[in-house]
Amino acid sequence: MNGDHYKVLDRLPSALEFLRLVHISRPVLILESPVNELAQFSDESLLQRMGQNEISIAKTPSGRADAIVYSEGGEYFAEPCTEMTTMQAFLNELTSAADTDASEVLYLQSQDGNVYRAEDFNEDLDKSERPRDSELKLLRDIVPPQVPFVTEALDQPPDAVNLWIGDERSVTSIHADPYENVYTVVRGAKHFTLYPPTESCFMERRLYRRAEYQRPRPGAPLVLRPNENSDDKIPWPSLVDPDQVPPLESMPVRITVEAGQTLYLPAGWWHYVRQSNDHTGKCVAINWWYDMEMQGSRWLWLSFLKGELGDGEAFSEEDDSDTD
Amino acid sequence: MNGDHYKVLDRLPSALEFLRLVHISRPVLILESPVNELAQFSDESLLQRMGQNEISIAKTPSGRADAIVYSEGGEYFAEPCTEMTTMQAFLNELTSAADTDASEVLYLQSQDGNVYRAEDFNEDLDKSERPRDSELKLLRDIVPPQVPFVTEALDQPPDAVNLWIGDERSVTSIHADPYENVYTVVRGAKHFTLYPPTESCFMERRLYRRAEYQRPRPGAPLVLRPNENSDDKIPWPSLVDPDQVPPLESMPVRITVEAGQTLYLPAGWWHYVRQSNDHTGKCVAINWWYDMEMQGSRWLWLSFLKGELGDGEAFSEEDDSDTD
Repeated sequence: MNGDHYKVLDRLPSALEFLRLVHISRPVLILESPVNELAQFSDESLLQRMGQNEISIAKTPSGRADAIVYSEGGEYFAEPCTEMTTMQAFLNELTSAADTDASEVLYLQSQDGNVYRAEDFNEDLDKSERPRDSELKLLRDIVPPQVPFVTEALDQPPDAVNLWIGDERSVTSIHADPYENVYTVVRGAKHFTLYPPTESCFMERRLYRRAEYQRPRPGAPLVLRPNENSDDKIPWPSLVDPDQVPPLESMPVRITVEAGQTLYLPAGWWHYVRQSNDHTGKCVAINWWYDMEMQGSRWLWLSFLKGELGDGEAFSEEDDSDTD
Repeated sequence: MNGDHYKVLDRLPSALEFLRLVHISRPVLILESPVNELAQFSDESLLQRMGQNEISIAKTPSGRADAIVYSEGGEYFAEPCTEMTTMQAFLNELTSAADTDASEVLYLQSQDGNVYRAEDFNEDLDKSERPRDSELKLLRDIVPPQVPFVTEALDQPPDAVNLWIGDERSVTSIHADPYENVYTVVRGAKHFTLYPPTESCFMERRLYRRAEYQRPRPGAPLVLRPNENSDDKIPWPSLVDPDQVPPLESMPVRITVEAGQTLYLPAGWWHYVRQSNDHTGKCVAINWWYDMEMQGSRWLWLSFLKGELGDGEAFSEEDDSDTD
């Protein structure tokens, strides 16, 4: 399972080919994507579709949301300040940030199924049972609800489909998810640094007190506020920057995903993600999360490795940290 | 992975459906088989095809070939006496054994790919590279060389295809193989007692000195001769009869496979097999062995469990013990 090699596919695999890859459980770069027209994700196209609808934008001083930060002599798991704004205002800020030296880093990362949720694939639910609409519902005509070969291989629809819009200042701290992740870049590029579940020990996970960036009053700069309840801690890797300070004796898989390409990121793999801007100073991506098979040897193996982590929270879904 | 339940399919699965089952890695009973006509495996049909060609028949006093036996105060891994005879003579002996109280137990179990071998699927090999012909080559017109949905799912031909002919006196001692096993009964029935790889600890494997049944002179009864080299030992479960003396706290999966039905036995599963005669006093089966995926989490998991066994020989392919 170790080694820094990874498979590259020229085109989208068949369901059968993909299922074989799922069970080999190594990352795969696919030089195609399920998205029909990348051009449909231009600023103009996004603005035209979203109109004046407000969306949740994560804001931090550093671009390190849902990450370990040092503040007032302490270490915290810092969650971003979330503010509502229009797509127009958001994209304008990103555009100007590319030129000016903006003070805050914005990231559209509301990955609660911000385009499609599991419930959207369940016709049996009546209206009352459905959650509030996805914030980016108006983009559904350009975001494929499913990745056909994955849905067929895993015999289920996605659990969540999300759009991500940010810039090179935003970094995703290293973590692992209990989902099969299919990740397509539509503008700019994403740089993944990946470690297999077997290298969980190198993540040196610790329990961190939660904190959140808050804005004391409109116009004021963000401040980090530790959570009132000092016992509310979350297990998180203390490996802050594996690219600058790589763990010894470990072997990351480094994959850059360009616009129009797709990464298959197997469940349980640790990932650290940086991004590159397109010519307008933005990076745009879509990911489809599918539940992993919760039985059989692969699940047992991940559970076993998870158990080894001590607090047994490697893939806890309770912690609602927003992370791609 | 534990529990005594198992999936039953009314019909042969698609390649995609089968691959999902492989990765759940639990036994599955399929109420169909890849064999076109069961009638083609009648005594008459087998005799007509095999003519006077000689075949290897395993003979034991007890029906327990490749099993732990107690002899002269010692415990041995007893391999059968192998003698050459014609299909006619062999089937006659089985037929009469059903009525009379025969002294020896005969079993056609030469599972070296006695119908097809991996080399038969490799057109690149020239004649010199090919092994001697399979002993039952003349039955190839009635034994399917491959199970289409398995070959497509695993993207490879079988490693070996074997025909098995015996009677209810023959029992297969519990063991595990590093192969995906697809097992079709064509006459009589087979009774499988199965334990998942996670229950390897219950097998209480020990190292046993090898011994072989030999016939001192023609017509003489078989005697068990311990191997000259007392250091030539083989790791084998000391769990001799899990049906009569089941291990405590373990949960076997018991599956009876009737004529015309097929069992998928996942790689690494421990299996103990008894058989029932058809009306002529025989049990006939075919199995297709496919190499398992030797990378990814499932392989890691089996390797991990294997390692736990101490001698690390759980799936050793060196020991050439004949076992279905």
